Amino acid sequence: MTQKPWEHAKSSGSEGDPLAARFVSSLDYDKRLYKHDIAGSVAHARMLRHVDLITDDDLAAIERGLKEIESEIDEQGDAWPGWKVELEDVHMCIEAALIEKAGDSGRKLHTGRSRNDQVATDIKMWIWSAINETGGMYSRIETLHRAFIGLAERDGLIVMPSYTHLQRAQPIIVGGEILAWCEALAYCRERFVTCSTFHEEYALGSGAIAGSSLPLDRFHYHEALSVGPPLMNSIFATAELDHHNDFVFALTMTSHWLSRWAEQWIIY
Amino acid sequence: MTQKPWEHAKSSGSEGDPLAARFVSSLDYDKRLYKHDIAGSVAHARMLRHVDLITDDDLAAIERGLKEIESEIDEQGDAWPGWKVELEDVHMCIEAALIEKAGDSGRKLHTGRSRNDQVATDIKMWIWSAINETGGMYSRIETLHRAFIGLAERDGLIVMPSYTHLQRAQPIIVGGEILAWCEALAYCRERFVTCSTFHEEYALGSGAIAGSSLPLDRFHYHEALSVGPPLMNSIFATAELDHHNDFVFALTMTSHWLSRWAEQWIIY
Amino acid sequence: MTQKPWEHAKSSGSEGDPLAARFVSSLDYDKRLYKHDIAGSVAHARMLRHVDLITDDDLAAIERGLKEIESEIDEQGDAWPGWKVELEDVHMCIEAALIEKAGDSGRKLHTGRSRNDQVATDIKMWIWSAINETGGMYSRIETLHRAFIGLAERDGLIVMPSYTHLQRAQPIIVGGEILAWCEALAYCRERFVTCSTFHEEYALGSGAIAGSSLPLDRFHYHEALSVGPPLMNSIFATAELDHHNDFVFALTMTSHWLSRWAEQWIIY
Amino acid sequence: MTQKPWEHAKSSGSEGDPLAARFVSSLDYDKRLYKHDIAGSVAHARMLRHVDLITDDDLAAIERGLKEIESEIDEQGDAWPGWKVELEDVHMCIEAALIEKAGDSGRKLHTGRSRNDQVATDIKMWIWSAINETGGMYSRIETLHRAFIGLAERDGLIVMPSYTHLQRAQPIIVGGEILAWCEALAYCRERFVTCSTFHEEYALGSGAIAGSSLPLDRFHYHEALSVGPPLMNSIFATAELDHHNDFVFALTMTSHWLSRWAEQWIIY
Repeated sequence: MTQKPWEHAKSSGSEGDPLAARFVSSLDYDKRLYKHDIAGSVAHARMLRHVDLITDDDLAAIERGLKEIESEIDEQGDAWPGWKVELEDVHMCIEAALIEKAGDSGRKLHTGRSRNDQVATDIKMWIWSAINETGGMYSRIETLHRAFIGLAERDGLIVMPSYTHLQRAQPIIVGGEILAWCEALAYCRERFVTCSTFHEEYALGSGAIAGSSLPLDRFHYHEALSVGPPLMNSIFATAELDHHNDFVFALTMTSHWLSRWAEQWIIY
Repeated sequence: MTQKPWEHAKSSGSEGDPLAARFVSSLDYDKRLYKHDIAGSVAHARMLRHVDLITDDDLAAIERGLKEIESEIDEQGDAWPGWKVELEDVHMCIEAALIEKAGDSGRKLHTGRSRNDQVATDIKMWIWSAINETGGMYSRIETLHRAFIGLAERDGLIVMPSYTHLQRAQPIIVGGEILAWCEALAYCRERFVTCSTFHEEYALGSGAIAGSSLPLDRFHYHEALSVGPPLMNSIFATAELDHHNDFVFALTMTSHWLSRWAEQWIIY
Repeated sequence: MTQKPWEHAKSSGSEGDPLAARFVSSLDYDKRLYKHDIAGSVAHARMLRHVDLITDDDLAAIERGLKEIESEIDEQGDAWPGWKVELEDVHMCIEAALIEKAGDSGRKLHTGRSRNDQVATDIKMWIWSAINETGGMYSRIETLHRAFIGLAERDGLIVMPSYTHLQRAQPIIVGGEILAWCEALAYCRERFVTCSTFHEEYALGSGAIAGSSLPLDRFHYHEALSVGPPLMNSIFATAELDHHNDFVFALTMTSHWLSRWAEQWIIY
Repeated sequence: MTQKPWEHAKSSGSEGDPLAARFVSSLDYDKRLYKHDIAGSVAHARMLRHVDLITDDDLAAIERGLKEIESEIDEQGDAWPGWKVELEDVHMCIEAALIEKAGDSGRKLHTGRSRNDQVATDIKMWIWSAINETGGMYSRIETLHRAFIGLAERDGLIVMPSYTHLQRAQPIIVGGEILAWCEALAYCRERFVTCSTFHEEYALGSGAIAGSSLPLDRFHYHEALSVGPPLMNSIFATAELDHHNDFVFALTMTSHWLSRWAEQWIIY
């Protein structure tokens, strides 16, 4: 009897050297992707049903299993027993837990999918959330912006010195100083908006690099994920890290301005 | 009799230590801004005329002088005799040459202006040109993009292996590989477009940091420069280096993709 | 009645904004210095006794208290109740715990000392340990070096291809390849040795920047710390971060070689 | 008749695309290695004579030719007609010029040598000179050090404030401030000394990666170069860039201290 891929993954992991397992594992930092990983898996399962690669029963078992897993992790966090370092990453841990819950239906979820397109999609959704959700970068910058505006309304007409080269220069009003920081924050916020719209196309359906010989429907994810359309080229979709870079650059510029603000506060 | 600022600048320069002059000078790299510096000065002069701070004759003398200087530098390049290291930078060299040509009218050009808002405007215009003019980043990426498309049309249906982890993976067609690079180039091009539109507001009229007590009309530059409107906050306008950072980031991402392309070419 | 510095420190901390306390606190990463902080405090207390600034009873109470604190942290680690984020750093937490145990004697420990010379000394001792103690960089590199030698003895005469530019180049023997990595490790080890001897002079006695008006004996630490002599210039001693930089550079070069080794292993 | 390697190099270069030639050429920056390249070639030629791979006449022709080339470049600098971008680098340009002068004897110089071990040796010698020769880093730091000492002798006892966090702190004397910079300079100087002695072993004789099947005597270079002994492992010798990194790190730390000094000067 031939070995199934998922059996190989489990057995080789459990027999391997624990040191090597810990070294190659990315669980420490990628477990925070769990909600996005599950959302992507639900979208993938629905697409597989849509093109008749799985049955209605499979889909129901998968959705039910993933929903349970999400609730468990919501509650237990790092203590969730499914986090097993020898399974290497968030994708394998969730998949293994699903197979325990949903049996063969769970085994079918990874059909026509690779961890390459899966992680690219997860991270894009994570970045989208980190920018746009409540408590994300957009709303944090907004809150700070509004606090500055409040300050300007209260004390804006007080006269103060401006500084160039650590020396007192021309007189200004407090409002002028404060609104300068507001302009900087507006630039910071705008970069996150640009990043978010620039990277709303997803990689799902790209497989490891060259798609799949199965009759997937890449446009069907769109509906389930509420993002999209898909990136057209599977090689680019699995190779590009531009969404990382653009997001990190937007964060860097924001840190830069917050750091300048803090330094000026200290000097004052 | 009191000393005029420009006399001070000239005399202190000529008496200083040549080593210090060479150390603080930025001429080596900022002389390439000369066309933008002159365009900004023309816009500034027209604004000064508009608000009646200079006369028609002054404006005519300034425009004629700057035009001559531009022609001289166009022809003589680094050999232009006006490049004097003791004058520190492109702004002072051009101003000194203008005063030689236009006398007191030339001396009036710097009214209501600082090198702070001047250089910020110069560099923004330089970046705009480096992106949008013939031979700029946009058209260079376009040319490469079109070359890739031509290659895909000619050889696109040939079958080749794709690679993951330096190992042969799924079979693909040449067109798929080439169009992946086209997607990367499209991202690179888009970043320059974003940078260019993001930074079309200018700093002129912001002075050293807090504007000017003279009745300048900051909206009048708009017409002469064909860019604008002005940045609203003079403190931000003279402090922000975001236009540098956004442009350098767009260049870095482009280099990154060209480097990946070159590496893959070498491995093939 | 005037407020004592330590009362101020405690009261201002407990009344401050918890968010600000968490923001300025360095406890997360500097608590690992506790053993070195305690060793430095013992040396300082003995010096204070030597110059008659504290009594024999003070010294005994301080040494007993610090010894207890060290045992507690050895056992309880991060759970030690003395770690209080509002106390800002490892130095203040240990000092506050000492005052609880040793009363006024504990309060006298900080005489003639600043957190500036204290942290510089702590980090130098930490770096010394990280290089020279069992499990430190020196012995780790030695272990890897010996493993390579063992491999060379076993398989050294097997013939294999060498590679340049990812292409097979001249034939070599396995021993030649392995001993190349040994040379690299020898360079890495040597950098740590150099770093360790370069930075064995300590900052204690330098105060915040300009020493102290009390009659401290900077040469007396030498005996208690088993390192030294003191850095001669107190301004340099509290300003220099060269020990950080040299250590980080030695780590970086070691990572660089381990990374090259890992990459080659993967390519093979 | 078969083509000789040097003929290939010349012919392929002259027929290639000038754009590609300019792109791959390193002449712009490696031409400054010419003195060290010639010194290494003289050492290599003497070694080849020592092991009877070339004749006395060959050696004489090579030494005479290289001496002429060195004089020509000393005089003509960048205008030397032997700098040909299509020859790619300093090694090929000098070799081609030598062949013109010394014919077949010149062609024999590259026997048992690769540009890999040649450039590694050139750069090590260049770094040695940049540290130890008149006008090198060691003597520059010495000069600055002595200037500080002179200042301390003249004004050392004047009282001034010291600063922490941009605020006036304890009173100090000018001599204390100045000698702090002297300590920093001593650290900087020491790093160059360490770098220089750490990297005095040369790569010559290592070939492209795995030495040579010719009976070279790697210990014979020692005498001609006045450095040495050879690096034992040819794979390491041609792979390591540690001499670059250690030198750049020593420069970086020196820049860091000069920058801090400059910043403090500006703030005062």
